[in-house]
Amino acid sequence: MNIVITGAAGFLGKKLVKALLAKGSLLNRQGQMQNITKITAFDIAPLAGIDNPRLQVVCGDISNPAELANLINEQTDSVFHLAAIVSGQAEQDFDLGMKINVDAARQIMERLRALPQRIRLVTTSSVAVFGGNLPDKVPDDQVWMPQSSYGTQKAMNDLLLSDYSRRGFLDGRSLRMPTIVVRPGKPNAAASSFASGIIREPLNGEAANCPVSTDTRLWLMSPDKAVAALIRGHELDSEKLDQGRVINLCGLSVTVETMIGSLRKIAGDDVVARISYQPDQAIINIVNSWPGDFHADYARRLGFEANASFDEMVREYLAEKDATA
Amino acid sequence: MNIVITGAAGFLGKKLVKALLAKGSLLNRQGQMQNITKITAFDIAPLAGIDNPRLQVVCGDISNPAELANLINEQTDSVFHLAAIVSGQAEQDFDLGMKINVDAARQIMERLRALPQRIRLVTTSSVAVFGGNLPDKVPDDQVWMPQSSYGTQKAMNDLLLSDYSRRGFLDGRSLRMPTIVVRPGKPNAAASSFASGIIREPLNGEAANCPVSTDTRLWLMSPDKAVAALIRGHELDSEKLDQGRVINLCGLSVTVETMIGSLRKIAGDDVVARISYQPDQAIINIVNSWPGDFHADYARRLGFEANASFDEMVREYLAEKDATA
Repeated sequence: MNIVITGAAGFLGKKLVKALLAKGSLLNRQGQMQNITKITAFDIAPLAGIDNPRLQVVCGDISNPAELANLINEQTDSVFHLAAIVSGQAEQDFDLGMKINVDAARQIMERLRALPQRIRLVTTSSVAVFGGNLPDKVPDDQVWMPQSSYGTQKAMNDLLLSDYSRRGFLDGRSLRMPTIVVRPGKPNAAASSFASGIIREPLNGEAANCPVSTDTRLWLMSPDKAVAALIRGHELDSEKLDQGRVINLCGLSVTVETMIGSLRKIAGDDVVARISYQPDQAIINIVNSWPGDFHADYARRLGFEANASFDEMVREYLAEKDATA
Repeated sequence: MNIVITGAAGFLGKKLVKALLAKGSLLNRQGQMQNITKITAFDIAPLAGIDNPRLQVVCGDISNPAELANLINEQTDSVFHLAAIVSGQAEQDFDLGMKINVDAARQIMERLRALPQRIRLVTTSSVAVFGGNLPDKVPDDQVWMPQSSYGTQKAMNDLLLSDYSRRGFLDGRSLRMPTIVVRPGKPNAAASSFASGIIREPLNGEAANCPVSTDTRLWLMSPDKAVAALIRGHELDSEKLDQGRVINLCGLSVTVETMIGSLRKIAGDDVVARISYQPDQAIINIVNSWPGDFHADYARRLGFEANASFDEMVREYLAEKDATA
């Protein structure tokens, strides 16, 4: 099994590389377990800190078709395409978002189409495709009405992946990710960055700002569950995908207040006191356009799993922090 | 008022040119009636048969950015973008469909974005964006799940037009057209071509084949109503577009049997006897993936109108035929 991962130096990419190396095998398109012989970890910056003979680290530009042609070739069985411009940056720089989130993704699909073997493509989409008048709990057949360029670009990609799959150019699966919390590391330009920041920074003795109202409801998934979902998304038999190639994953629906309550229970009042509450209207506008709860019946039927509680998500972060300390 | 129409030599384009010349004025973005001083009719083939000092006929390639830059310029107030690769052809030639229905449409939007004035863009989308498990009557908030490359491409375009409008690059409106019946002229490569053919050909003394079951339900609109909808779509104040820039138009929901019944009532048994019933599985697959009935509440609220009966649609064709005979 020869696997290519784009955006591999990102936090989810790196976790996926580790998980695949640990797992050692994946189902192939014939439904048989096959050893993973090679993982090519592609990103604009090198994936550092993992040393394994089956891992090849490659730096490059996902928007360059010549580099893509080298990266993805006759030996490739599966591609996890995780490289993306995040929501805040795609809103600030429309052209960069289109270039990476739409055009580069399309070039990857064109590359898969040009190869003789049917390659499995797993990619991520976002709840940012939803917006407008929404029910409290969004059903799987809810129309897409993105209120951001990021959501627009992810939805375009979802459509294209579905059509490329229908035409047999590739075997695609797009997973609509809840907001991933608690992300390790630094804040990023995603409008949802605060959702990890208000847990992570206080736990690390630092101040964090909550830019939205504490009654804001978010749809969340922990990093471990996200990696499990990517692998599950890869393993599904195409014939099971009877509701299409785009899957609204199941997540945990919680308010910011509940999140802070878990933090208080697990880490105490002093830690929670490091959170400030300065509203940021730009973030409020984007985050409020995202739904806070989903039915996700299709994902559940396909065997995807949600976190049981926000406590579990805080504890997952603490365990990860201890393991890497 | 300086108007550009792409696909102007097509049947809908030509009807729109005539209707705009007859109307003589349109609302501008300030909500004031303004005389139409120039219509540029752009198409790959020349628009023939209309002679008017306000009309300029230009031939060219919509996928060429240099030609677009000449066509749409500092004097342009509004663009009706009707040029498209139809459903059957987009399914046969994927790359051509992407080039015209996605890339050329995006280039037009980029051109509008580059100009200093806010240009109104009216374009057409299609019920081919819908598919999968659908309710009998499709609501406005139904998810898009195209089962054809044409539907995929139109949906991508709808997303892009909405985001370009939200960002203030242009003032767009995308009208999801029902199947237009009765089209004049010859059959085309659209999967829906038969829906006009089974009325038009018998009325002209020719044989026609019905490739689908007569209990197939179709969502229809006459050419006159379609042109009225394009003009209505242009005239709407942006502030009224509170459910987004993509509008499922209201149409008439009828079975093929009802259509043939109208033809029998208006033209007699001998005319209906010219229809044969040879199934075509490729057409059945595409047409059966399109919904046959819609709520279209948003369109109704915005003042769009549907045909009252299929009799009316047959009579509109006969009147048009007499007028041009």
